[in-house]
Formats: sequence, structure tokens, C-alpha cells
Amino acid sequence: MLSHPQNKYRAFKFLDFPERTWPSSKITHPPIWCSTDLRDGNQALANPMDHDRKLKFFKLLIESGFKQIEVAFPAASETDFNFVRYLIEQNMIPNDVSIQVMTQARSDLIERTFESLIGVKQAIIHIYNATAEVFRRIVFQKSKQEIIELAVSSTKQIKSLCLKYPETKWTYQYSPETFCFTEIEFALEICEAVAEAWDPTPQNPMIINLPTTVEVSMPNIFADQVEYFCKHFSKRELVCISIHPHNDRGTGVATAELALLAGADRVEGCLFGNGERTGNVDLVNIALNMYTQGISPELDFSDIKNVAEVVKECNELPIHPRHPYVGELVFTAFSGSHQDAIKKGFKARDTQDHPFWEIPYLPIDPADLGSNYEAVIRVNSQSGKSGAAWILQQNHGINLPKNLQKDFSQIVQKVTDKNNRELTHAEIWALFREEYGVSSNQREFKLINYQSYKLEDVYKIEMSIDVEGELLQISGYGNGLLSASVKALNLEWPYQITIAEYYEHTLGKHTNSRSISYIHCIDSTGKAYWGVSIDTDIAAASMQALLNAFLKFHNLNYQKIKTH
Amino acid sequence: MLSHPQNKYRAFKFLDFPERTWPSSKITHPPIWCSTDLRDGNQALANPMDHDRKLKFFKLLIESGFKQIEVAFPAASETDFNFVRYLIEQNMIPNDVSIQVMTQARSDLIERTFESLIGVKQAIIHIYNATAEVFRRIVFQKSKQEIIELAVSSTKQIKSLCLKYPETKWTYQYSPETFCFTEIEFALEICEAVAEAWDPTPQNPMIINLPTTVEVSMPNIFADQVEYFCKHFSKRELVCISIHPHNDRGTGVATAELALLAGADRVEGCLFGNGERTGNVDLVNIALNMYTQGISPELDFSDIKNVAEVVKECNELPIHPRHPYVGELVFTAFSGSHQDAIKKGFKARDTQDHPFWEIPYLPIDPADLGSNYEAVIRVNSQSGKSGAAWILQQNHGINLPKNLQKDFSQIVQKVTDKNNRELTHAEIWALFREEYGVSSNQREFKLINYQSYKLEDVYKIEMSIDVEGELLQISGYGNGLLSASVKALNLEWPYQITIAEYYEHTLGKHTNSRSISYIHCIDSTGKAYWGVSIDTDIAAASMQALLNAFLKFHNLNYQKIKTH
Repeated sequence: MLSHPQNKYRAFKFLDFPERTWPSSKITHPPIWCSTDLRDGNQALANPMDHDRKLKFFKLLIESGFKQIEVAFPAASETDFNFVRYLIEQNMIPNDVSIQVMTQARSDLIERTFESLIGVKQAIIHIYNATAEVFRRIVFQKSKQEIIELAVSSTKQIKSLCLKYPETKWTYQYSPETFCFTEIEFALEICEAVAEAWDPTPQNPMIINLPTTVEVSMPNIFADQVEYFCKHFSKRELVCISIHPHNDRGTGVATAELALLAGADRVEGCLFGNGERTGNVDLVNIALNMYTQGISPELDFSDIKNVAEVVKECNELPIHPRHPYVGELVFTAFSGSHQDAIKKGFKARDTQDHPFWEIPYLPIDPADLGSNYEAVIRVNSQSGKSGAAWILQQNHGINLPKNLQKDFSQIVQKVTDKNNRELTHAEIWALFREEYGVSSNQREFKLINYQSYKLEDVYKIEMSIDVEGELLQISGYGNGLLSASVKALNLEWPYQITIAEYYEHTLGKHTNSRSISYIHCIDSTGKAYWGVSIDTDIAAASMQALLNAFLKFHNLNYQKIKTH
Repeated sequence: MLSHPQNKYRAFKFLDFPERTWPSSKITHPPIWCSTDLRDGNQALANPMDHDRKLKFFKLLIESGFKQIEVAFPAASETDFNFVRYLIEQNMIPNDVSIQVMTQARSDLIERTFESLIGVKQAIIHIYNATAEVFRRIVFQKSKQEIIELAVSSTKQIKSLCLKYPETKWTYQYSPETFCFTEIEFALEICEAVAEAWDPTPQNPMIINLPTTVEVSMPNIFADQVEYFCKHFSKRELVCISIHPHNDRGTGVATAELALLAGADRVEGCLFGNGERTGNVDLVNIALNMYTQGISPELDFSDIKNVAEVVKECNELPIHPRHPYVGELVFTAFSGSHQDAIKKGFKARDTQDHPFWEIPYLPIDPADLGSNYEAVIRVNSQSGKSGAAWILQQNHGINLPKNLQKDFSQIVQKVTDKNNRELTHAEIWALFREEYGVSSNQREFKLINYQSYKLEDVYKIEMSIDVEGELLQISGYGNGLLSASVKALNLEWPYQITIAEYYEHTLGKHTNSRSISYIHCIDSTGKAYWGVSIDTDIAAASMQALLNAFLKFHNLNYQKIKTH
């Protein structure tokens, strides 16, 4: 690093504006949304969209509910010009949608822009010129007065061209480039002059768009600028105040939100934050944030995965796994305590008597974005007892008893700690089945068949079991199936086990569903093991679960057995 | 989408705090930075880091200047425990660095945590418990009083364990989980109780960490909460106030910055925003944003590409091309007007008499992050005349005359419009050489040798040129080399060209450098073409440039030639 690069960069000049009121404001309704994916987003792509990609994206924007779409810079490229013509000539623009096109404040480009729009029902003509001091001095070497004259004469040219095509409903949009580092009084002065030339009325609408084409200051400073502008602009009630944030400081979304508090009516941006350098502000992010204000964004992202697929394809850019609302990891909790809290949140949701979403660590319901719960909990070495249990429950309808959750989580952690990687859902299921004997292939104590007799208060069981390839007949008495089975085993082998816990539940809602049995056995020395089995016959499931637990004592005592 | 999902989400409860002063504050110094990459970041990885990756990341953090590093949750996994032991036993922790470890407020975990730390010179013990209403009600079913008792008893246990190991300099850190949606008065109450139990003094330091473990509100609301907390906390001057933002609403960086305005002293986060779901706040982003306050972050990211490589390798996660400061596209301008402004900015920088960075559309000098200017301008169909010219200048030292810039940009745009994709630097160079005859292989009018004579005021040239394999001798008179050469050509062929513009400059600083000549010729019908040539002999360069332009007239008139 240069020894002191901070000497090269200056603190942003603050507007002294203690009268600000935006910090006490609230967002009460969504802004007007304008997508500039096909213009500002498109121009920032290594390979700008061809006609087909542009059209696909345009249709997506319509489906998502956008009513204002900046579609092109028609005077800048043939592709853009032809795309605008196509939309108009092929009647692709719904009646309630305005397309917007951009042009620089240059007479020949303005003429060409109008040529692209002939026949459109309604359109927004967006013009900009450079107003910031650094641009005036370094790029254009023009005085403030010359800059104003350029903006005003272009406005007049556009006004007369609009009159030439009265069949179109025109809206005029002016952007002082770049508002955020233009002196606020000059920004006001030039916008006043432009509005004076345009003469906005409800029949002759106008948008003033305040860009942070390069984001150079904190969002609160931009909010001050927007509120100051709104309070001092003489025709405030006759114009729509729009913002156009970029994201160079990584604070584009906040900049947009605070500017809405400060009085902005409209936001321009791109889906998932495409655009020059660090991108335009991410409209999906701002829109879905509206829910935390308790309001609807009035855009439809209910199938956000599809939206993401189309955008990725059109932009040829990835979406980061941690991108808010849409990244593949955004609903995922790996941490044990997070998983536990989420699990309890879902449980509480089953019984809560109000509609509000309050699942810990899940700020939005994945279902509202067309996602499922599969990604919510994933299991690595940092996951606690809830993670694996949740996965078994979600995927297999298995409600592990609490002590078995703990037992299994220790087994899972040993594996993840050793392998230092995540276990997939399939691996967790395989580990569970292997560990507790559910995989019938690996059973060494296999119930072949059984007969049971109830003789007044006494219950008798006769079991045929396959023990490592050898068929054994054993029998025992007890006060029920399980106690008799335990007795039979204890008569044949010397482990003297008892049953500490027993649970059984069906895996489906039908009477012919399979049941799962969990049996926790303990021997005279205090050793304890779980066995699990699944069967359509609840008795067989129980006996096999018992045999699966019993097998563990048998394996532990293998040496003793051999001498038995 | 559900018909009205907004009914499922409630507006965040606002703190009524009109006395706030943070919107008028400025950031005047960097906060204390604490990286939690090895803990909060690590636990959110599908495959948490193994020992080697953790160590590599730890070393990177040390090199980057972090003095506080949360390294593990030692009671949660063997890998974490062993890593802490390794750092201590292998003496890996510099004297001015504190490691930090996290634990839940559980007696056995606290004991185990201290075991991991035996022998460390200084350490921060970080404990958290759930304080938010939704956690108390849904996850723990505990009263406020029970939650306070848990925090206080854990604090006392930690205090007594610290006394047991007096050779270590201990700092205690408490986090009410999650501060941002805990009732502010309860957050104050529990932190007061914890601070009372710890009794912070300069000899017995304490950090109160205010997490937004799930980001649920706008950054200004969090700033209100932080300022309110700071103003009402009785031991404010005795504790360090830390924040721990996440990024669920995509506003983590802004949340951190506004919280610094509101009085926070310290920020916890991860490099490039790793962490559960949408990630912890991105510390690199906040740090480099400090330059826009005119202050140094006091972290060293002067070789940010290397930092990014290490982090990507350790986390096994990508960094998005548009990620602020480090994505591959963050310095890239594709737009023609942006490129033009950047080019003028660099030109102005050569002559400006102050040290400040003021390149339009480039908020930070890529050189300060160890990057070069290669990615600054890339050329697609949206690029104007400056883009290609910049690339030729940067890579080949070629200063195209203004009209030639325009001519070449139209050729570039035809190609990009047709191919709908970016042109690489190499492709632009090849296109330039082919178009203007610089590629000697393709020359059809090749200067073989020449003789020139000056006879008083008259100049005579004799040229041998290879025209499509045929050697021609031509000669002419004029008042200089070029006029004589034009005369010779006009005598032999019927195009009657004149020279409209001529430029020549060296391509290097040595006298034996090559020169480049640009010649713009016009014929009697007004047709005009450029020719360019590079040679160590300035006369040969000029004559060949002339021949290269001439070739175009020749090709245009090919049919006529054949009948000539």
C-alpha cells in the first residue's frame, strides 16, 4: 500500500443539514420500480445481450410486475435501436408498461432516439448531462452556465419532438450526472432550469432522477442530499423524484432505503445488482426487504429461482451463494444452536394462534420465494443435535426420540470432525440406517418369523432368527411382546439387557403405512444402545429394533460369545 | 407468492428516539477490527476448515493487521479445540494480538473453553445467551429473570476461572443474542447485570457486543438502537461497545457504518462477507470505505488479490465479479462515456497540482489495492471511441489522433455489434493492425526501399514498392518527403489523393525506438482513409503509412485498376 493513501482520498463533503427529518420516517408503501437491466445493466456486460436475450429478460421483467423498464440506449448501438423498434412493431409492450430510453444531451443523438420510438404508446425519454464539479473541470471544461444551457436546450429539443409525435404519451426524465457529488445548490439550479423548460404538469409528466453513478458517501449523507433537494425544489409536487444508486461502497441497498425515507418516489436499479463495476442497486433485494416493513413490494418474486436462472443466463454472470434472498446458502443454517432454534420455531408455528412469521434465524419464509425447506439446515462439524434430526424428519418423517437425537448427533459429529466436510442428506440417512440396524443387508440378527401366544396374563413368544447365517429358535415369557422377547434373548445370551426406552410411530398417514420402532436397551453394567427398525408390521418392527440394539451388545461381547 | 405475504411479516418495531445525534456525526478514526472468519465464518461453511486451512487464514489475518481474531468455538468441536491448543503451544500468536474464543453460557462448555486456553498470553472470552423475546418464548421458554440469571452466573463462573489463570491477560465479551430484536430496555438491563458481575476496569476489560445475528431492520434503526444503548448504559466509559452485523437485508456494511456514527468502538465481521446465510458483514468493504472518509483503515489490503485468493481457497466460496473493491469487474468501465471520462481524468492527473485522487468513475486507485489498470477499460458494443484508444495507449504506447480514434471506434463497434461480445485487448490490437495496414504480412503495397534527394527547394523521391508481388519503381517531386511520395503515387494511379492529416510519434523513450506514423488521405471525391505504420526509420514509417492508406483507395477502385 502507498505509505499513506488516505492523504490521496478526501473525506466526502458533508451537507450541513440538521433539519433533516428522514431518520424518524418510515417506509409505508413501495416506490415506483424502474428496471434498467436492459440499459445500464446491459452496457456493463462483457458480452452485451443479443436480441433474443434482451427479449427474454424483457418478458421476465413484465412477468415480475415492472411497469417502467429502461430498455435501451438506442442512439448508441444498432442492437439497441433495433430492439426498441422490435418491441414497438411487434406490439410487445403491455398497455400499462412504459418503456424508457436513454440518451446523452446531444442533438443528433436525441433525433436518433426519437426515431427509435416512433409509434410507441407511452415512453420515458431519459436524458443526462454531467453536472458534477470534477466532470465539468476535468472531462468537459465547461462552466456551470454552459452545462445548464446544454441541459435546457436539449430539454427544449425533446419537448418540441414530443409535440411532433402527439400520439405517444411522453414522460421526460432528467438526470444530473452525478447528483451525489454535484454541489447541491447547483443540482437544484440546473433541475429548476430544466423543469422550467419542460413545464411539468399531470398531462406533461416529468421525472427528476438523482443518480449515485459512483457511490462515494455513506447512505445517510445521500439521504440528507435527497431530503434537502426535495425540500428546496420549487416544483416538488409536480415531479417524480427518482434515485439511481450504484454500489461502489457496498451500501447501495441502504442508500436506496434511506433515500425513500428522505422522500424519493421511485428507484432505478437491476435485478441482483448487475451494472457497471460493482453494479446498480439490487432491486430484488430492496423489494423483498419491504416485507420487514410489513408491506408488499408489489413485484412478484414468488418463483425467485426461475428469476435467478433467467437473469444468470441473460447476463452471463453468477449470483453469489450468499446473495440476499436468492443465493443457494441464504436459508441455510449450519450452526447447531441456529438449527435448534429453527426447529423449535417450526414446532411453535404449528400451534401458534397468529399468522406472523417468527422462525429464528429465518427472516423470510423460503416458501414465499418458491423455495423449499431442504436447504434450511445442512450438517457439518459445527452442527448440533438438531441438524441431523431435522433432516431425518423433513426427508423421512422420522421423529427421533430426544436421547436418540443426542446419540446420533455424536455419531454425526465424529464423522464430520474426522472428514472435515459437510454430510449430505443421503449420507446422513445412510449413516443412521447403518448405525441403528435399519439397513437390512447388514443385520446379523435377523428376525425370520415369530409366533406369539397370550395365555391369560402371560405372553409367550417364539422367534426364528438368523444369527450370522445360523437359524436359531428362541422363546421366552413375559407380560407382553417386548418383555417376552427380551426374556428369550437373555435366556440364550448372557448380557442381561433391559429396555430403557421404547417409541414407535407410523411413517405415513395410512393404516398400511410402515412403522418405525426405536428401542433403547441397557445391560447390567450400564452400557446402553439404540436399535431402530421399520416394518409394515408393528410387532415385527419392535422385535427387529430390539434385535438391532441387541446386536451391539453381542458385538461388544464378541470375545465372550466365542467362549460361550 | 402467497396472496398477501405482507400480512405474515410485521413492520419492525421502531424505537422512538428523536434525540438521536448520529446523523450529524462523522467517522474520524477506524474502529477496532475483530475478524470472526475462523469462528462465525467457519461454522457456516459446508466444509469447515481443517487445521491447515485455519492456520493459513490465521496467518493472513495477522499479515493484514488484525489485532483481535476470534479463532474458534473450542467446546463445540475437536478441530476447534485442537487449533487453539496448537496456536498457543506453537507460539503462533504475536504479542500484540488477542485471540478470541466463543462459548455458550453453559457451565461444562465454559470449563472446556478455559482448558483450550491454558497458557495463552491474552485472550478474549466471548459468551452469549439468547435475550430476544422470540428466543425466550419459542426456543428456551424462559423468563427474563431466568435469562439474566444465566448470563450473570456464567459471567461469575468465567470471572473465577480467569482468576484461576492469572498469567493470562483476560478480556470478557458478552453478547445479548440477538440485540437488534431484543427489547432495548431488556438489553440494557441484562448488560447492566452482566457488567455489574464482571466489574469492568482498565485492568479487567470488557466488551459488550451488540449483534444483528439476523439483520431485520434498516441500518438507521440499528444506529438508533446503538446510540440509545450507549447513552443509557451506566458504565459506558468502562466498556468497549462492539457490533456484529450480518447481511440478511443486504445492508450489513451500512449498518456497521451508521453504528460507528452512533458510538460503536469495534466491528466484528468476516473478509468478503462469509458467514451464516447471507454472511457476516464484510470487513474489507468497511475498511476500504474508510478512504471515502479520508482516513486510513489501519488494515493492510495493499495486495487484495492475494487476500482474495487465500480466502477463496480457505472458504471454498467464490467472490462475486462485482464484489466491492475486489471483484474482477469493480474497476471496469464498459460504457463509452465512462471510458472517455476516465481517460480524461488520467490525463488531468498528469498535470494536476494536488495529490487527490479524482478519476471519474474510479472511486479508488486500483494501484492502492495492488491491481493494475488493465481491467479499467474493456470494450464491448456499448463502448465509445475512448475505450479502444485507451487500450492501444496502455498496452502499446499509441496515442491515436482524435479523428482516427473516431474512425477506429466505428470499426470496433461494427465488430462488437455483429458478434455481440466483448473484444479482448489482443483482438483490438489485431483489428487495429489489420485495418490500418500495420500487419506487414497483409500489405499489398510494400515499401521495399527508397532514395530521396533534396535539390534546393525541391525534393525527389524514388520508391521501390511491391504491389501484389510485382516490383514497381515510382518517383515524384514535391516540397518534402510526403508530398513527393503522394506525387509519385498520383502519377502512377488515378486516385488523386491528398494528405489531410499526418501525425508521428515515437513508441519509446530511446533514440533507437520505433516510430508510428498516422496518415489520413482524401481523394477528389471526398473519400478518406487512414493508414498507419511502425518503423525504426521515421521516413520509412511515413511512406509505408501513406502506402497503407493508399491501398484502401486502390482496393476501392480495384475494378477500375483492372481496366487501367
